[in-house]
Amino acid sequence: MKRYEIFITAKEGIFDPAGETSKNALLNLGYDGVEGVRIGKFVELDVDDTVTPAQVGEMCEKLLANPVIEDFEIKA
Amino acid sequence: MKRYEIFITAKEGIFDPAGETSKNALLNLGYDGVEGVRIGKFVELDVDDTVTPAQVGEMCEKLLANPVIEDFEIKA
Repeated sequence: MKRYEIFITAKEGIFDPAGETSKNALLNLGYDGVEGVRIGKFVELDVDDTVTPAQVGEMCEKLLANPVIEDFEIKA
Repeated sequence: MKRYEIFITAKEGIFDPAGETSKNALLNLGYDGVEGVRIGKFVELDVDDTVTPAQVGEMCEKLLANPVIEDFEIKA
């Protein structure tokens, strides 16, 4: 078994409403030093030995991320 | 400016419907080697120098994560 960690984030310039709302909420709670919050996805993918790293990239492109508006990074 | 990376995942034993659905979808796409998918959140938090690491922990406890059902890990 092999675990991949995949980080999916909104591309630069894509509005991130959840992050913006969280930032405002933190400022309202009194955390005046908060400058920015971006919220993405963190995927833990467990696969067997037949799955290649290239296939993991395919899975991100096809299903896990939306390449139009999201970037992803894969760590083995 | 300092950036913290925060990883929020469902606690062991907490059902993760998004992960389960993604796993089934990947199996249906023919990726037979997929054994498990867990989907959590990846938060990029930018703060100024007045914010302490302890305060970042507080932000997670109070707002960013739900400590009843989620674990979080903070990387500076």
